[in-house]
Amino acid sequence: MNGDLQRALGVNLRRIRTEQGMSQEAFADTVGVHRTYMGGLERGERNVTLKAVERIAEIVGRDPLDLLRPS
Amino acid sequence: MNGDLQRALGVNLRRIRTEQGMSQEAFADTVGVHRTYMGGLERGERNVTLKAVERIAEIVGRDPLDLLRPS
Repeated sequence: MNGDLQRALGVNLRRIRTEQGMSQEAFADTVGVHRTYMGGLERGERNVTLKAVERIAEIVGRDPLDLLRPS
Repeated sequence: MNGDLQRALGVNLRRIRTEQGMSQEAFADTVGVHRTYMGGLERGERNVTLKAVERIAEIVGRDPLDLLRPS
């Protein structure tokens, strides 16, 4: 369904962040985005590009496809 | 690597199109994009958004994640 990929990305990013015990702000700094943007990403509200997914995946050390998979 | 997802998308779209014996122009019409844009998609040159991937996947009747997987 439309929006499923970005929602899966958000759920996965939030899980990775909380597993690492990081605040949203610290995680945003790590990924190199603003805290409010990271909030939107975690809520699945951001229709990001494929290259943005790859960049985030590289930073958090995951496979890009895993970040897009429903968990 | 950066660009892997969009390259996989292009390879998969080209395979789906040729399996259906469609020209690039007819396929572009089906997906609702211009022929030159479809050419860029198939060459893996388009850094599309997640929602664009979902829209294309729905039109060609595939799972969005399958379109992003290297074949």
